[in-house]
Amino acid sequence: MRRFVADLSRNLTSQRRKKLATCALRHRTCSLFSSSQSQSSVVIPIRFLNTTSVDPSMASDYSGTPVTLDTINPKVLNCEYAVRGEIVTLAQKLQDELKENPGSRSFDEILYCNIGNPQSLGQQPITFFREVLALCDHPTILDRAETQGLFSADSIERAFQILDQIPGRATGAYSHSQGIKGLRDTIASGIEARDGYPADPNDIFLTDGASPAVHMMMQLLIRSEKDGILCPIPQYPLYSASITLHGGTLVPYYLDESTGWGLEISDLKNQLEAAKSNGTSVRALVVINPGNPTGQVLSENNQKEIVEFCKKEKLVLLADEVYQENIYVPDKQFHSFKKVSRTMGYGEKDISLVSFQSVSKGYHGECGKRGGYMEVTGFSPNVREQIYKVASVNLCSNISGQILSSLVMSPPKVGDESYESYFAEKDAILSSLARRAKTLEAALNSLEGVTCNRAEGAMYLFPRIELPKKAIEAAKSANKAPDAFYARRLLDATGIVVVPGSGFGQVPGTWHFRCTILPQEDKIPAIVTRLTEFHNGFMDEFRD
Amino acid sequence: MRRFVADLSRNLTSQRRKKLATCALRHRTCSLFSSSQSQSSVVIPIRFLNTTSVDPSMASDYSGTPVTLDTINPKVLNCEYAVRGEIVTLAQKLQDELKENPGSRSFDEILYCNIGNPQSLGQQPITFFREVLALCDHPTILDRAETQGLFSADSIERAFQILDQIPGRATGAYSHSQGIKGLRDTIASGIEARDGYPADPNDIFLTDGASPAVHMMMQLLIRSEKDGILCPIPQYPLYSASITLHGGTLVPYYLDESTGWGLEISDLKNQLEAAKSNGTSVRALVVINPGNPTGQVLSENNQKEIVEFCKKEKLVLLADEVYQENIYVPDKQFHSFKKVSRTMGYGEKDISLVSFQSVSKGYHGECGKRGGYMEVTGFSPNVREQIYKVASVNLCSNISGQILSSLVMSPPKVGDESYESYFAEKDAILSSLARRAKTLEAALNSLEGVTCNRAEGAMYLFPRIELPKKAIEAAKSANKAPDAFYARRLLDATGIVVVPGSGFGQVPGTWHFRCTILPQEDKIPAIVTRLTEFHNGFMDEFRD
Repeated sequence: MRRFVADLSRNLTSQRRKKLATCALRHRTCSLFSSSQSQSSVVIPIRFLNTTSVDPSMASDYSGTPVTLDTINPKVLNCEYAVRGEIVTLAQKLQDELKENPGSRSFDEILYCNIGNPQSLGQQPITFFREVLALCDHPTILDRAETQGLFSADSIERAFQILDQIPGRATGAYSHSQGIKGLRDTIASGIEARDGYPADPNDIFLTDGASPAVHMMMQLLIRSEKDGILCPIPQYPLYSASITLHGGTLVPYYLDESTGWGLEISDLKNQLEAAKSNGTSVRALVVINPGNPTGQVLSENNQKEIVEFCKKEKLVLLADEVYQENIYVPDKQFHSFKKVSRTMGYGEKDISLVSFQSVSKGYHGECGKRGGYMEVTGFSPNVREQIYKVASVNLCSNISGQILSSLVMSPPKVGDESYESYFAEKDAILSSLARRAKTLEAALNSLEGVTCNRAEGAMYLFPRIELPKKAIEAAKSANKAPDAFYARRLLDATGIVVVPGSGFGQVPGTWHFRCTILPQEDKIPAIVTRLTEFHNGFMDEFRD
Repeated sequence: MRRFVADLSRNLTSQRRKKLATCALRHRTCSLFSSSQSQSSVVIPIRFLNTTSVDPSMASDYSGTPVTLDTINPKVLNCEYAVRGEIVTLAQKLQDELKENPGSRSFDEILYCNIGNPQSLGQQPITFFREVLALCDHPTILDRAETQGLFSADSIERAFQILDQIPGRATGAYSHSQGIKGLRDTIASGIEARDGYPADPNDIFLTDGASPAVHMMMQLLIRSEKDGILCPIPQYPLYSASITLHGGTLVPYYLDESTGWGLEISDLKNQLEAAKSNGTSVRALVVINPGNPTGQVLSENNQKEIVEFCKKEKLVLLADEVYQENIYVPDKQFHSFKKVSRTMGYGEKDISLVSFQSVSKGYHGECGKRGGYMEVTGFSPNVREQIYKVASVNLCSNISGQILSSLVMSPPKVGDESYESYFAEKDAILSSLARRAKTLEAALNSLEGVTCNRAEGAMYLFPRIELPKKAIEAAKSANKAPDAFYARRLLDATGIVVVPGSGFGQVPGTWHFRCTILPQEDKIPAIVTRLTEFHNGFMDEFRD
């Protein structure tokens, strides 16, 4: 299969880009559905990056132990997660090397543009959120005089409010398995204020970030490899990984790069029918909005079409809405799928919809806190009970993450002591992210053979690179996917870590990488310079 | 099967207790292995408690939605988790009822003895731990003068140390997927100090409590229902739930109640052989030490036999050691399985061993923080890489939980400013727990038809009740397992919540319940009185 894709791209790269896209689009159905292998797990190109290299000598030392690669769960073996894959391991080695021998490279630090992890790159937390968390962690200082000098009045008040919502004020106790009821009330109010439609605290399941929530839904829906989940390509690899781990089939639908990563209902329909005719029972549709890795923000009309499609085809709509606060263009707005479906007149019993939210994204970027929730609507009480049961096996999510989730959905308001500083911090982060997105997008588009859609939202750019035939051949010799080869060379030359497009899936024969917009603003010019120099050199080396 | 168990117990309860145990033990192999149903998922008695009652009218309102109980993953449907099951839902309803109509019952509060959740029952957190967590949450106050007045000098120093271990001091960033390296160093040193043998920080995987770690290992080991995991009965139902969710087979071995819940190697051997002859490939052995729900502490000799058994039979040893700090009797001591296996001369490459630890238990009981780790030894680098990959799909565990895990394994030392208060807090909790265990154990043993082994460790008592025939018949009429019937009546009459033994598994025909020793000491006399009065009344009502 690897050779097939390589051959395909060799045939295609000599053609013009527009033609390539059309051609590859024509080929893709065949490449994705022609073999049973592609049906049984995930989109093939994802397999490229991370293949485990089995060194028999390593295993033989452990011949006295019972577990080998041959005897572990093959679903684990097949699962791929490129965001923390091979390229990141290499980057970490390079970082150690730089620490031991400073000056051994032409750069002095590794710039991790592989992952949406803002605070790892110097973004500061929102003060109000951290004040409240600290006070809830150590409530005995709430009544002390010194505390007034150290914390804002409204953070103290909020901490009191939150503690009053926790039975026995016990932030060290397991909570209700869906999360503390009072915090779910706050979150439901936040959703109501955002959408203008009612939200029920009993629909909220607080989780350790969005990932466990996604796993929970996949676990519920997937019975065997005959169950399919419609997933965008490119996609955030949590979805392909989770579907693989739960033994289901990823049914891909392609976002259309030529229309700014638009979602074509006709393509959805085609892929659904193709899957059905292969005997796959499609259970759900994943939509990531704003998009990851693609950065597009769906129009309300497009969202309505998607809701209608799910309604008609009896699919659960799994809406990844973790980037709802990350919108960088004035002509786009975030609308939750719940709001859109309610606007269309669909109520609780008309459509099954799960919305995922996380404290890791937004302007706050509190990845390390592992907070998040899913809002589960349109499931019968009997099925809901099963979701609750699965949640209860893990007892509950972490309480700091729960508290932070409530804060994110109910930040300081006009008139609160913290409001001005809160708003200034938030605005500074979001407007800087918008500037960074624009600068990087322009820089990428100025490179030979590179085109990049704008980042309307989320935290990423996903440029497409037309790689010279020679580069593709060099990649083949190095036993790498061409985009992984490019990313590896980029890392070696500049210390910039990006994730090859094959980690997210892409139209076969096209090559991309995902680059976050998260490095601090003062580093952006250097990144642009280094990237440009590297790219020019790379093209000079391999130009056909 | 339900009738079989009821009939069995009806036949047995008229005999003397000693005889009953022997007889039931003789019957158990047949009841556990006679049908393919028992092989395919979990021990049958567990099925009793939580069976979902499908009310067709509830589902029909949702006829427009795609997901029904018939179309969800049957593994989810089959999974049971009694600790938060039906009885707890009832207790919550009763609590609401009491809130609305105080005085409507003969008791004024619900006493949750169903779950090891100390802080929910009033246990206070360890001050030093919370000081450090608060400072790491809001490090900008570290340099402020007021902070000196509010926090101990060593908590400030520790917070600085921890922040220095975190790249960019970013407590809001995703960490390495195994957890922050510096914290793993601290934990490894803590393990070394505990065991007297080296520990490698690269063997540590920090997790959101022990549950996700257990799931991770089950996911790795279980390929199909033909893979079996040896599990103690009674067991903590996380294990049966996780095995069911991952589609494997629980192979039970019985702890011997008559020898203080001893673990008989001959029984292990018999169950392993029986499973093998049924075509089950047994992959691992779960041992919970100190025991949950049974409270026993294994002797070092018994541990050596277990290690030898795993070595010989090529089984992964999954050692649940989350209660390692909870030992209440002077004649017992905790020894980690790693220490025991090293003492026997087995090194890294001789035995595959995973030790689970959690911040939720011990004297600190920080359940809400969801911190914990597993120490993974004796797996080849290739297999280890797969465990890392699965961890990386969920990015990382929460940083507060990671920090707390490091604190638990490295608390204040003699000479530190906090040491005295830390030691006093710890000692007060542990010695009070020992007193509570003794009082409750004595009270239970004084009840008609009740025998209770001592709680040498952990947080639970697991008394056995010889229920009168009439009670068993009444339970049958009410469509309840006899122990669930008893627990329900206990809740109704006293507000005390315990978990029926069927939630943990028990020798068929015997009945138990699990009761925590966690209510605050001033409530224990009232619990004893209420429990005694209820039990006497129950026996009077149903005595044969």
